[in-house]
This record gives sequence, C-alpha cells and structure tokens, in this order.
Amino acid sequence: MKINKPTLIIDKSKSLENIRMMCQKAKKNGVVFRPHFKTHQMLEVGEWYRKFGIEAITVSSVEMASFFAKAGWEDITIAFPCNILEIVEINQLASKIKLNVLIESIETLDFILQNIKNKLGIFIKIDIGGRRTGIIPENISLAEQIIEKLKDSRLLNFKGFLAHAGQNYIATSRQEIIANHLSGNKILSDIKKRFSNTNDEIKISIGDTPACSISEDFEGIDEIRPGNFVFYDLMQFKLGSCNLSQIAVAVVCPIVAIHKTRNQIVIYGGAVHFSKEHLLENDRNLFGYVVKFQANGWTIIKNCYLVSVSQEHGIVECSREFLGQISVGDIIGLLPVHSCLTVNLMRENYLVIRNEK
Amino acid sequence: MKINKPTLIIDKSKSLENIRMMCQKAKKNGVVFRPHFKTHQMLEVGEWYRKFGIEAITVSSVEMASFFAKAGWEDITIAFPCNILEIVEINQLASKIKLNVLIESIETLDFILQNIKNKLGIFIKIDIGGRRTGIIPENISLAEQIIEKLKDSRLLNFKGFLAHAGQNYIATSRQEIIANHLSGNKILSDIKKRFSNTNDEIKISIGDTPACSISEDFEGIDEIRPGNFVFYDLMQFKLGSCNLSQIAVAVVCPIVAIHKTRNQIVIYGGAVHFSKEHLLENDRNLFGYVVKFQANGWTIIKNCYLVSVSQEHGIVECSREFLGQISVGDIIGLLPVHSCLTVNLMRENYLVIRNEK
Repeated sequence: MKINKPTLIIDKSKSLENIRMMCQKAKKNGVVFRPHFKTHQMLEVGEWYRKFGIEAITVSSVEMASFFAKAGWEDITIAFPCNILEIVEINQLASKIKLNVLIESIETLDFILQNIKNKLGIFIKIDIGGRRTGIIPENISLAEQIIEKLKDSRLLNFKGFLAHAGQNYIATSRQEIIANHLSGNKILSDIKKRFSNTNDEIKISIGDTPACSISEDFEGIDEIRPGNFVFYDLMQFKLGSCNLSQIAVAVVCPIVAIHKTRNQIVIYGGAVHFSKEHLLENDRNLFGYVVKFQANGWTIIKNCYLVSVSQEHGIVECSREFLGQISVGDIIGLLPVHSCLTVNLMRENYLVIRNEK
Repeated sequence: MKINKPTLIIDKSKSLENIRMMCQKAKKNGVVFRPHFKTHQMLEVGEWYRKFGIEAITVSSVEMASFFAKAGWEDITIAFPCNILEIVEINQLASKIKLNVLIESIETLDFILQNIKNKLGIFIKIDIGGRRTGIIPENISLAEQIIEKLKDSRLLNFKGFLAHAGQNYIATSRQEIIANHLSGNKILSDIKKRFSNTNDEIKISIGDTPACSISEDFEGIDEIRPGNFVFYDLMQFKLGSCNLSQIAVAVVCPIVAIHKTRNQIVIYGGAVHFSKEHLLENDRNLFGYVVKFQANGWTIIKNCYLVSVSQEHGIVECSREFLGQISVGDIIGLLPVHSCLTVNLMRENYLVIRNEK
C-alpha cells in the first residue's frame, strides 16, 4: 500500500460491526432501520448494508437520491424539506423508485399537488426541539391541514411523521440525549394518537446517531434513520455515542515539516481534507486525534492533536516522545471530528482496509 | 438561467477588475506577479489571467501543479513544504515545466538531492511570524547550510527566500497588517543582504492577499503571490482587504422552508457547499451575508445572515421586511466567509455571469 498524499482510510471490519450493532438494535426493538447514506455517499459502503438485508435508505438531497437510485436502491426517503425547484428530478425519480419526501408547509404541498406525476410518499416533518426545520408541536393544526389536503390526492400518500433531534448534537451528557430522545418520542406518539382515527398506518420515523446509539428505548417508534454511526467520529465520541475504537475512518497524511522547538509537526492535510469542524477541548480547538497508522489498523497516540488547519496544511501538536519517533516523509493518521464532512471531501480518494468478506 | 440547487456564481466582471488591480499594483512596484491558483483551482479562471500576461503561477500541492501543467501552465511554484513522498510526481513535472518547490529542512533537501532527476528551483521558506512553516530568522544558519549544500547540485537551483504572513489573517486592523508586512519585508531583506555576497540573484517572494491588497510599499520584494483577491470574501472584507462590492463569488441557494415566528429561512445550502468557516460578528457566528441575486449581479440585503450550517441545510436569519418578500422556491445568494474553501467545494457546479470578452 503506497500512500503519498492525504487519503481516507476506512476500516471495513469496524464499519461492518457498527452496522451489525445498529441492525441488531433495530431488530430487537421492532423498528425499521432505514440508514442515512449522507455520511458515506459511497456505492461501495452502500453495498455493505445489503448483506444485512437493508433495502430502504435515507439521503439528504435529490441529487444523492438519484445517485443511489442509479445503483439499484429502490426505496429512498429524502430527509430534507422538499425543494420544489427540483420537481422535474423528483418526478423522474418517483417514476422509477419508491420515493418519500418531507413537507412542512402548505406552500410546498400545494406546489407538489399541482405538479406531481407519479406516486410519492409524504412525511410531515415535526420539530421536536432542534429548531432547524419542521412544524412545532404548538402549531400542529398545520399538520392537520396538510393531512386534510393529502386525502384528496391520488398520487401523494401520507406516510407519517418524521423528526430529527438536532439538539442532541449540542448535548453535554448521555442523560441529556436520553431525555431529549424520550421527550421527542412522547411528542411524536401524542401526534400519532391525535391522527390515528383518520389514518391507522401512520409511521413515526426518527433519526439521529447519538440517540440511536445511546438509547435502548424505542417505544412508539416505527423507523430509525441514523447515518453517522457507520463511521462514527470524535464528535460522537464526545457525545458518548461510541468509544474511540469504534471510529472506522481516519485520514492519513504525509509529514512535511517538523518544528521541534514548538513540539509541532506540519502535515499535508488541511481544511480541504478534514473540513473546519472542530471540538473545544481544554479551551482549545481540536481538528483531529493523531493515530499511528499500520496496514491493519491504527492505535491512538496520546497527547497528539491536530490543532490548526489551513487550506492544505495541518499543524499537529505532540509530545517530545512522539517527535523523537518520526521523520519528514512518514505518514500519520488523524481521526476526524465530523466524519460526514471529512468523507464528503475525501470520498474520491479512499482506501478500504480489513476488507473481510 | 435555471438554478435549482446550490450553485456557485462567479461575477467575471468583478473578478477581472480584481486581477487588473493586482496586476497594476505589481507593475507599479516593479514586482513579478505570480498569482496563487489554490483559490479558484479552475482552468477557466486561470485563462482570465493570461489576458493580463500572467505566465507564472503558484499552487499549494503537487496535484494542483499537475492539473495546471496539463492545461499549459509551464512555470509553477508549489508554495507548500516539499512532500518528499511525491518525488515521482515532482520528477515527472520537473521534466516538463519550470517547477519550484520549498525547502525548510536538511532532511527534505538531502532526500531531494539524492532523488531528483530534472532541474528544480528551490526556495527556502522563511517564517516571518505566521509560525506555521519555515525557518525562523533566529535559526538562519539552517538556511546557510541548505544554500551550502545546494551549491554542489547540478539540478537544484537556489532561487531565493519565500514567506507567507499567515499572521495577517488574525490581524485586527489594516495598520497591523501594514506593520506585519513591513516587518516581514525587513526580515527578508536582511536575510537577502546576508547572502548577497554568495549569490546575486536571490529573489524575495511574499504572498498574502491582505498585505498585497492593503499595502503600497513593496520595497525589497521581487515577487508577490496573492490568490484570494481574485474573488475576495467576507473574511477579507473584515480584514480591510476589499470592500463588499469587490467580492466576486456568491452561492445561490433555494429556499426550502420559512419560519416566520423566529425570522428564519431554511435554505438548501450547508457545510458541504460553504464549508464551516465562519466570522464572529456581534458575539455570534456568521457563515455568510445574504444577497438578492439577479441575472446581472447581486445586491446585499441588510441584516440578513447565514447563522448556522449543517451538512446540507443552512439557517438564515433575516428582517421581517425581507421575510415578507420571499417564498419557498425562491433562490437567495450568500457571500461566503472564505472563498478558497467554498470554491473548493463548489467548483464543479458553477456559473459565470457578466462574462465580458
């Protein structure tokens, strides 16, 4: 294996284990597992899910839906407020696969009602605390109006309520994540009850990796849509979703300069490889943890961190002990803070290790 | 013009004017202008420079050098600590074009001396305060050793000293940028003098957009390498390098949801389009300024900002007045915080407007 520039390394064995765990949890709790493919956006990784019987997936754009539909995925939810400007592409997709989109306004619904040409599943997006998208519970009469309008449609099929607890990404403890999860589930269950007399097949779909990783209680939930768990990352580690050994991606980078007087290494690897996502740890920003990379995996190097990134450069601060072991021209690995953003930047230059059958 | 997803818009007229200004400044000051192409990384934009007589360019990776060499650029400096793991690619490039690389250690130099097969220009990187890469002035004897070793080489040609005042990106005033610029130039001039008895063709090359935009004093400088100025961005505006009307790129994004109760718009446009680079303004993070986009350019909408980005979503906070003017399915433009990172993400989906000949 010859690596001479920043390269994404995917530990397939860890990734398969992460998928296996989430599948087991879904099965144990009797919920449908519709993994989010925005984290990897890779056909190869998509195929890994098929071995576990996964056929329905989640994506975050029409473009991503088209990409996976072309590769044979035939049941896709676009978990993003429906972009009416892509109605042509939505119609094309809906003519070929089972497609679900999210609605949170009458304006969008009216446009779709007037322009849809094929069957389309509709989830109503509910805001359970993230305050990004969705109908807030206090305004549930809006959902009522949407459901009422959907009744008359021959093509649009009301599927249920969908939520994403974005607030879990700023939680400060596992307890807070569990509390958010339970309160969110309660909101959704109450909404389901409210509409159960009009429709007895209403599904409740939730989706964040922190809650799906940490919680064992999925009472009232019909479907889960986590995505990040396939690789995990430092942000998830900090949230308590995983331990460090479950992180299945690292970026390996050449060492191009060593500055011993300030205990720093300069790597070829920067914001165009990692993104600028960072953690605050002991009052400083961290962009990655350093790992020693071997052909068969990696081990964490203590007290070594990526502390700064510019476009192509990264600055690693490390111990004198580690400085004594490395030279210009060596490569080191970095565990990313946010695997979704790092993989989005690196997915055309990756290498799979521990490629078990 | 039909835009239905996040699209980078380049105002060619503004961009040409930015290039023209920097060319004039270089000419007036008698310095060579070797623009950095990492900001745009686009062949089309590269061609715009040719009209101004530009033939020598700067890039930040071997990969980028190969990309532009294939398109006919024959004089390239890779302004990045030489990555010895890419020696094969460096040899290939050096066999075809005039190539310069940066050296800041004996280890790297020794490796190149042993492995180089074609003529290669060598700049010694000097750290004039950025503390990222380069030899600090206090350690100038290291440069002496490098120059001494280079004397015996038939293929390696010592060109001079190169610096980048990275500290200007955290400066808080134009005065500070000018002071950094002058002190950096003084350091470099002193180093040049020190070695002028051994070599009378030593070049001094500097490069940041803030100093090259703001300063009128290039005493002692032989070459400038700014890159960002071709588009500028909000970070440069905040530094005082440009005014808002000089920013030549915007990302246009569909509006997918409107939340009037909290004065927010949800756009299709997130971290995979803008990057997560942000400004701190009035104690909050901003990821972009909102502009009203028209076919022939854009105008800034007051008090409207991109305040949060997740992978594909962006949240815009705006005035009630603006909220009253827009609907789901409209598009809005956003001026990016850091055009280099935004363009890196968007350069395969862009549109040039005001495409004057």
